[in-house]
Amino acid sequence: MKVDGTPRRPIEAGRDGSSVRIIDQTRLPHRFETLTLQTLSETAHAIRAMLVRGAPLIGATAAYGVALAMRDDPSDDGLADAIGTLRQTRPTAVNLFWALERMRVALHNQAPSARAGLAWQTAGEIAEEDVAINSAIGDNGLKLIEAAAEARSSGPVNVLTHCNAGWLATVDWGTALSPIYKAHDRGIDVHVWVDETRPRNQGASLTAWELGAHGVPATVIVDNAGGHLMQHGQVDLCIVGTDRTTRTGDVCNKIGTYLKALAAHDNGVPFHVALPGPTIDWKVRDGVREIPIEARGGEEVGRIAGRLPDGTITEVEILPLGAGAANPAFDVTPARLITGLITERGLCPATEAGLLSLYPEMQNDG
Amino acid sequence: MKVDGTPRRPIEAGRDGSSVRIIDQTRLPHRFETLTLQTLSETAHAIRAMLVRGAPLIGATAAYGVALAMRDDPSDDGLADAIGTLRQTRPTAVNLFWALERMRVALHNQAPSARAGLAWQTAGEIAEEDVAINSAIGDNGLKLIEAAAEARSSGPVNVLTHCNAGWLATVDWGTALSPIYKAHDRGIDVHVWVDETRPRNQGASLTAWELGAHGVPATVIVDNAGGHLMQHGQVDLCIVGTDRTTRTGDVCNKIGTYLKALAAHDNGVPFHVALPGPTIDWKVRDGVREIPIEARGGEEVGRIAGRLPDGTITEVEILPLGAGAANPAFDVTPARLITGLITERGLCPATEAGLLSLYPEMQNDG
Repeated sequence: MKVDGTPRRPIEAGRDGSSVRIIDQTRLPHRFETLTLQTLSETAHAIRAMLVRGAPLIGATAAYGVALAMRDDPSDDGLADAIGTLRQTRPTAVNLFWALERMRVALHNQAPSARAGLAWQTAGEIAEEDVAINSAIGDNGLKLIEAAAEARSSGPVNVLTHCNAGWLATVDWGTALSPIYKAHDRGIDVHVWVDETRPRNQGASLTAWELGAHGVPATVIVDNAGGHLMQHGQVDLCIVGTDRTTRTGDVCNKIGTYLKALAAHDNGVPFHVALPGPTIDWKVRDGVREIPIEARGGEEVGRIAGRLPDGTITEVEILPLGAGAANPAFDVTPARLITGLITERGLCPATEAGLLSLYPEMQNDG
Repeated sequence: MKVDGTPRRPIEAGRDGSSVRIIDQTRLPHRFETLTLQTLSETAHAIRAMLVRGAPLIGATAAYGVALAMRDDPSDDGLADAIGTLRQTRPTAVNLFWALERMRVALHNQAPSARAGLAWQTAGEIAEEDVAINSAIGDNGLKLIEAAAEARSSGPVNVLTHCNAGWLATVDWGTALSPIYKAHDRGIDVHVWVDETRPRNQGASLTAWELGAHGVPATVIVDNAGGHLMQHGQVDLCIVGTDRTTRTGDVCNKIGTYLKALAAHDNGVPFHVALPGPTIDWKVRDGVREIPIEARGGEEVGRIAGRLPDGTITEVEILPLGAGAANPAFDVTPARLITGLITERGLCPATEAGLLSLYPEMQNDG
């Protein structure tokens, strides 16, 4: 999507095939800075230190990391070392492992001399496939926003979202935000309520930033406010992303998603979840019981980063000295609260039958 | 309640009858500082600048402000000026107007020479009546915590609360926290999940601080986390306060309360609201439709105060430059989501019949 009118991606392959340019997301929303990665170690650092984040973007970045490594050492050892190094960067990212395995399969039977070129090409394919999936999610979700626009007599379509499932988390378009960009670019009057998404504030920082940079009207709200807005008819639909979706349509997403789904259900506001098919976990049936929820450190609750009046970026402690905090990172929204799922293959109810209607090949899997 | 073992109140009358000592709540949770008020203008400033906050505490402080003014100028003009000045400090605080009216009624027919002494005495009565009401709320709510303790086979009773309805908001005990202090002081093993309560963080700063100072085990969570905890059996009951309660039991409280009530309802967790009878608005029947919700400035969402590593207190901006924010300050929780109300007269269902069973004199009011 665009930043001040210029199309950007959070990872862009250099034309020379020897470098990639990334946006340093740790500096957002206070600074927009790009930097160039030329080596395996620079790429591993960028993933580990979360300069790039979001599962699809991590996968694509890792693939380019292998490609950069093959320029320096295309031997079997070099390939094994690159994959081994990148595997260690973020231990729980499924897309990371998937992308690295795809690179390994593509390269390991090739002559070392062919590896650099082929790796670069395969990384590009991984990136473009992500763009195509997200663009298709956007086209499918666009129908929901178009319908909401038709149902309104006046004013913008108000969409509420939680966390960041935008282009910054993918190679382009995003998942939950993709239909919003499609609608905006088509001239539909769309406005986004952005949950700030404590404790890490991905909404207030990343989502508000990327929507603003592209020119989509957006308003940040605290995570407490969405229920009140829905009670008063100020939300036409909710669209969120998901980290993991069960076979039965339960959705594991950033902590707090469940509360917004409850409010949507209580007020008859449609609640949609956008997801790429590959993130469906066909082996899990009961999300609340079966999906383990990461308990992150309490210090994330007590510490918050921001800008001082002089522009300096700093962190402040907000809790009383000695106060403890708990920090579950995700929650599970039961399928019964979800109006529908938006995938690259189309829309479906959040049910096993709904998902299998779009992914019939998974009938006997799981 | 206690601060490091010493009983404290957020307002304490000096023995000499010429000053009151308050806790400067704008410095909490990072500094515990008291200061002495000796004049009308100091008292008006303390209310206006929110050194004292919470409706009952504002009322008591204003009453003492009139008493301090009567020492300097007990004339009719002096009385009118004191009441007029204090009325302007916080334009929407019902307790403020009520306390000032009570002071006016007590004083205006008295000889000026008698006013200072009588004003001091009346302010003391207002303060002690607040303490008595809150203590009674605590005794009544204690039964709920005792029942929850009996129902558990092991471990603490886990109570979730939102915002600050503790002793810092009243003259002592608090409302929602009063049953918790009673339970803790009686040796019941009670642990509190404290919603941080964005955007002003009254939970993370005031509630976490006062529970910690008294020695009650407490854990801060982001406002997003409560639903997940309830899904997993980690909350035995919720107790919150309220700014305004309708005749039918709808509750207007800090933004986000409604989301927690939805989660409690969805998971079968009892959701109780503690309130002094005088805060019931007998003229309102439908809270969602009839109660206007204050829209505060968006800058409150974008700015957060905290401690730098060197101990300095500062504010940082957390939003991208140019991002807009909306800031509804309260929401309404419909009575259907509320298990029961805790008042100074006893427990009742959140219904008109329930409230009238405790306040039969209001049958024909409203």
